[in-house]
Amino acid sequence: MIARRPVGVIGAGSFGSAIANLLAENQDVLLYERNKDAADLIRIHRKIRNFELHERVSVADSLEHIASECYLLFPVVPSAFFKHMIIDFSPYLRPDHIMIHATKGLHCEFDIDQADAKNIRLKEIKTMSELILQETGIVRVGCLAGPNLALEIMEKQPAATVIASRFDEVIAEGMAALRSDRFQVYGNKDILGIELSGVLKNYVAIASGALNGLGYGENARALLITRGMAEMIYIGKALGADKKAFLGIAGIGDLIATCTSPKSRNYTVGYRIAKGEKLDDVLRDLGEVAEGVRTLKIGKLIVDHLGASAPLLQTISKVLFEDWPIDRAIKLLMRYPVSADAEYLDI
Amino acid sequence: MIARRPVGVIGAGSFGSAIANLLAENQDVLLYERNKDAADLIRIHRKIRNFELHERVSVADSLEHIASECYLLFPVVPSAFFKHMIIDFSPYLRPDHIMIHATKGLHCEFDIDQADAKNIRLKEIKTMSELILQETGIVRVGCLAGPNLALEIMEKQPAATVIASRFDEVIAEGMAALRSDRFQVYGNKDILGIELSGVLKNYVAIASGALNGLGYGENARALLITRGMAEMIYIGKALGADKKAFLGIAGIGDLIATCTSPKSRNYTVGYRIAKGEKLDDVLRDLGEVAEGVRTLKIGKLIVDHLGASAPLLQTISKVLFEDWPIDRAIKLLMRYPVSADAEYLDI
Repeated sequence: MIARRPVGVIGAGSFGSAIANLLAENQDVLLYERNKDAADLIRIHRKIRNFELHERVSVADSLEHIASECYLLFPVVPSAFFKHMIIDFSPYLRPDHIMIHATKGLHCEFDIDQADAKNIRLKEIKTMSELILQETGIVRVGCLAGPNLALEIMEKQPAATVIASRFDEVIAEGMAALRSDRFQVYGNKDILGIELSGVLKNYVAIASGALNGLGYGENARALLITRGMAEMIYIGKALGADKKAFLGIAGIGDLIATCTSPKSRNYTVGYRIAKGEKLDDVLRDLGEVAEGVRTLKIGKLIVDHLGASAPLLQTISKVLFEDWPIDRAIKLLMRYPVSADAEYLDI
Repeated sequence: MIARRPVGVIGAGSFGSAIANLLAENQDVLLYERNKDAADLIRIHRKIRNFELHERVSVADSLEHIASECYLLFPVVPSAFFKHMIIDFSPYLRPDHIMIHATKGLHCEFDIDQADAKNIRLKEIKTMSELILQETGIVRVGCLAGPNLALEIMEKQPAATVIASRFDEVIAEGMAALRSDRFQVYGNKDILGIELSGVLKNYVAIASGALNGLGYGENARALLITRGMAEMIYIGKALGADKKAFLGIAGIGDLIATCTSPKSRNYTVGYRIAKGEKLDDVLRDLGEVAEGVRTLKIGKLIVDHLGASAPLLQTISKVLFEDWPIDRAIKLLMRYPVSADAEYLDI
């Protein structure tokens, strides 16, 4: 077997570390931690949040070093910091680099809290792959998404993910680097669809947490997930994505995992709102904005701008931002006149 | 509002009673209990398994009476007793009756434990709607399926179901009878697809219970459900159903509810097998055959007869009937060479 070049992972959070450990089963990995003291601590303890790093993972604190050592790069950085990171990284990136990001969020060029839906320009809302193309000389871009709770990956449970890219080569390189007996990798050519799947599922997860907070069970949740998927497809389609992405591992698969895992931040937001807490109090408590609340704001701007129909998104917005009582929201949704099953397949 | 004719429900089990209560919000209901003593007890206590019957539900112990009073009929009888019931009912049924069954199982004309896959005739495996058409003079047949745990319906939680029929009229009549502010009804023209969705999901639920029994979490379960759905579509397609049914409320919706509800018998079978118990012991304990074990046997005969590929079904069969260790089964499945995401949409 030919020795493989080391692979770079940018971002030593829990998901970044989980990806690093998976990659380390097939080759050496350089894991980027920006803060030099934090990097030293990881080097000494070989642990991130109680989980042991694979022996083939080395911690790096220089983006220049990673760019020169690796040609396959996995940035795993929250969407709010992504642009900053990619601008710092850009001087060292070459057209022969392959970059597969794993960030489930959107970037907005404008202030989402001040924006007026009528006057926004959709081009100023960008996926992470669009940001990479805009800010670097890299051409071969991909994204990684799927039902991949970091904790379970660290525990070596079996799982699967999707790598999406317009380039077969990116999918093939990502698969070769990541695939193992406990981690399946599927390929999808519709990168926009896969990115939007990962983003849009967040507001459905808020709704799922809310249903649970109300004491509702499997029937209501299964209905929410099924119709939530349909709505994600409508919004995705309006933005140019194909429905297929939403019906695979990173679409319905990730949606199921997120909507049934009480561990997720988005689920927690919905749950506590349903229990009568105020959004501001919940967010203050959680310490950082749940990605779903941001998604919901951006999604509402998009849907209103397009004049599209997205009853679930619009109703959850009313609950979170306009203090609608949840039972009123559910009554409205239950009366919504849809009657053809799986009609979203026809679009 | 014109007074509606009473609707008949055949079978006073927990799901039959839940359907009766839903129907009673829109019209009078006759609920059939075959055993006269049991019928009298329900008449006195107005309860079935601790749940109160709606005041508009009357208990009937004569099929002839129900057939003469109602023109819309909902049989909700386990698949093993369905043929017996429909033969008893048949003399009283007229071509103007509409029958919408809610039984998630298959009927076999041969002994499934003795059958040889090569020599079976697929025509001798029948869905409940095929049995109704074969044994009665009824033409307008439909089926009802969806994520509809009886307990949650009895608790008046919001939910949705699908009515499938080749006849728009059957869907419209079923909707008018069932729909309410807490119960949505979707329509689907592919009755075979909807029946098979309800049947095939059972073996995926066994697998889901097994994953949980092994201590695995959301990632593995989401992968199972997504790939299980794909496999159900392949099998359904081979039997003449359309993929669309599997992607709606009664398909993926019901699959999600069944695979995430530890209350289901099928889930319990998988869970206990994973904990090291023998199938025979588990089934003896449960007191009646879990529908999924029967489905798995019939499904394996179908798949082997067609020479089709259904790795999940075949692997679970090996665990349940050939004592394969589960970790061997999971290793095999994780190595199964599928790499295109949502590829099942292309068939």
